[in-house]
Amino acid sequence: MSLAGATQDEVRRHNLAALVRFLHDHGSTSRSELVSHTGLNRSTVGGLLSDLVAADLVRETEPVGRGVGRPSYGVEPVATSAYVLAIDLRVDRTIAAIVGFGGEVLERREHRYRPGQQRETRIVAQLVDVCHELLRAAPRDAVMVGVGVGVPGLVRQPDGLVRFAPNLGWVDVPLGEHLAGALGLSVPVVVGNDSDLGAIAERLRGSAVGAANVIYLSGQVGVGGGIVVDGSLMMGAQGYAGEVGHMRVNPRGRACRCGAIGCWETEIGEPALRLATHTPASMPVAEIVARAGAGDKVAARGLRTVGEWLGVGVVNLVNILNPDVVVFGGTLREILPAAREYVEAALSSALRAPGEHVVLALPALGDDSTLLGAAESAFAPLLDDPLGVIAAGRGRAGRGVASGSR
Amino acid sequence: MSLAGATQDEVRRHNLAALVRFLHDHGSTSRSELVSHTGLNRSTVGGLLSDLVAADLVRETEPVGRGVGRPSYGVEPVATSAYVLAIDLRVDRTIAAIVGFGGEVLERREHRYRPGQQRETRIVAQLVDVCHELLRAAPRDAVMVGVGVGVPGLVRQPDGLVRFAPNLGWVDVPLGEHLAGALGLSVPVVVGNDSDLGAIAERLRGSAVGAANVIYLSGQVGVGGGIVVDGSLMMGAQGYAGEVGHMRVNPRGRACRCGAIGCWETEIGEPALRLATHTPASMPVAEIVARAGAGDKVAARGLRTVGEWLGVGVVNLVNILNPDVVVFGGTLREILPAAREYVEAALSSALRAPGEHVVLALPALGDDSTLLGAAESAFAPLLDDPLGVIAAGRGRAGRGVASGSR
Repeated sequence: MSLAGATQDEVRRHNLAALVRFLHDHGSTSRSELVSHTGLNRSTVGGLLSDLVAADLVRETEPVGRGVGRPSYGVEPVATSAYVLAIDLRVDRTIAAIVGFGGEVLERREHRYRPGQQRETRIVAQLVDVCHELLRAAPRDAVMVGVGVGVPGLVRQPDGLVRFAPNLGWVDVPLGEHLAGALGLSVPVVVGNDSDLGAIAERLRGSAVGAANVIYLSGQVGVGGGIVVDGSLMMGAQGYAGEVGHMRVNPRGRACRCGAIGCWETEIGEPALRLATHTPASMPVAEIVARAGAGDKVAARGLRTVGEWLGVGVVNLVNILNPDVVVFGGTLREILPAAREYVEAALSSALRAPGEHVVLALPALGDDSTLLGAAESAFAPLLDDPLGVIAAGRGRAGRGVASGSR
Repeated sequence: MSLAGATQDEVRRHNLAALVRFLHDHGSTSRSELVSHTGLNRSTVGGLLSDLVAADLVRETEPVGRGVGRPSYGVEPVATSAYVLAIDLRVDRTIAAIVGFGGEVLERREHRYRPGQQRETRIVAQLVDVCHELLRAAPRDAVMVGVGVGVPGLVRQPDGLVRFAPNLGWVDVPLGEHLAGALGLSVPVVVGNDSDLGAIAERLRGSAVGAANVIYLSGQVGVGGGIVVDGSLMMGAQGYAGEVGHMRVNPRGRACRCGAIGCWETEIGEPALRLATHTPASMPVAEIVARAGAGDKVAARGLRTVGEWLGVGVVNLVNILNPDVVVFGGTLREILPAAREYVEAALSSALRAPGEHVVLALPALGDDSTLLGAAESAFAPLLDDPLGVIAAGRGRAGRGVASGSR
């Protein structure tokens, strides 16, 4: 942001946003760290912090640091001051949560679908129930900032139209619009691709902190990718970039739900793992891995097959994208530790220059990468204009329109 | 660039750079267009133009435009005021040129290697000869800005170390350093990947002008890719991104020069075309295409095979990258028109959302995309500080160090 010609109010809002963004991303810190991070002087930071404390977004804690110089007051985000609803909509279940300012999960719900319940109207109805249940559990007097949803499919921006979610059977579903209408809240509902959101969260708080070029792979029934290039999420021409699961790796392979033959996800998705290991859908992936570890030869051979195909696609992505880190999310989080040797063997056939550098990582956020990425997408307005959003939220609450007051 | 706190000199240099960049990219224009493009007022633009005219970088031409209002003076770059040496180093030949300010090719040389002459020392020696020959043909009194080289391989930045060029048989060749030393010029020598440079040139002056997400494919013996994401060349973690030729598309395919099996370039590179069409290396690709068009069934079948594999990789790239445009350079420039139906048929198996949008284009710069991209990389210092580079260049010429004076 160029501040040439900015008014004093704009400068103040910009500085407040920088403080709030730092606190949200890094959590508990000290005044001195805020001073050195923002480049603002001590008294300016002090003044801005007073405003944030008055708005209950931030609290000051005991002085931290000892030794030379005077101690610096601690500062931390108040998780219960503002929150978002975050939803990770999967092919077999929905995970929804209240995530507080600072990124902490305050409440979490998980609902498996009954068979045949993936129709959009059913899922939207169920999401609305879960959201209302969560809103009742939300911290009192907290400001609700927005709703973020991750979907396993191609999502058009900025309207959240789900163009294609093959494993849900959805084509051109206006999920953002329907959900906003059904929830009846006066905050934004942001819909994004599940893997894109996973990539954002792992880069912000997970295994890829500090990395400029990241691939987050999300393995479920299908396989998606969220790709960060030079620090920014790669969107492509219309926001559809990252569909790595539909790279064709096996011309003699299986039919994919997308209509093509031999897509990567038909070799490494959960159904492929079931086929390769002769296991029923009811058996958790972790148990297949445990069985292979305990000497079950069928399970071990199946994991090897899936691991080798996993390696093929990873090599392609390394050659095309030259990433710093590849994060293996979803079911791949269970598969990687059991199949790492096959993926690494495949990597030896990548070009040496990009291949020698890449790190294969598990998501530090566990199963919650997409959920926390969805939360981040919903927090954006607060991080852009903290006091404005808090004031507007309390105004709405006073008029009985939003958050826990419904 | 934020100009907050900038000195008057910095502002002037910034504004001069903006004018010179516009003239270099767009060629002949008018004062009014410069005024509306830069947002500067008429008298500031007039003052800056006077300086550029005094430095011989720019000349004013007859007034253009009629009708209402006063006519606006025409302005055009002087191609012979400043130039770069541009080199497109290929597996079988080198193309070298003098490219003048504004992007015009002033002199061009093409040298095929004799068999076995791809050793680095041979190629560097030959490049040095060609460069000196070109320098003797350079416009009198013109300032030489730099040397740009495109190489079919992985190039480390910023030092121009060629990490791996499988089809030249090069590993860790310090081409930039050797060439700078052997040429003995006091200007920068910039080495880049051939496809990256092709992408830059096609986006600046070719088929992808105005597109934010572009893939430039360069087919020769090998196949490379230059990928533009959201307006910037995708470099990846160490600058190696874009090696699309080493995406594995055929697990039962041929051994690749990179050491892997079934890489895309083993199915669509020139040797694959020769195999599929039963033609000798001496027959130009254009003639194979002509034969197929004239009813030669072997040629037609071979082109179909190559075209179908071309489609497989293009679909993968469309799904992963969601580009606006894919530009088919090198031998693919000849192949696409003959195989477009197969590539388009394959595209119907891409995901619909990214697939329905992408444009398959031929390079508007013909065979010169990489050459002109190499020129652009060498022009960078002039576009950043026009008068400083011109003054320094004339200073060197006065002391007998550079350009035609050797």
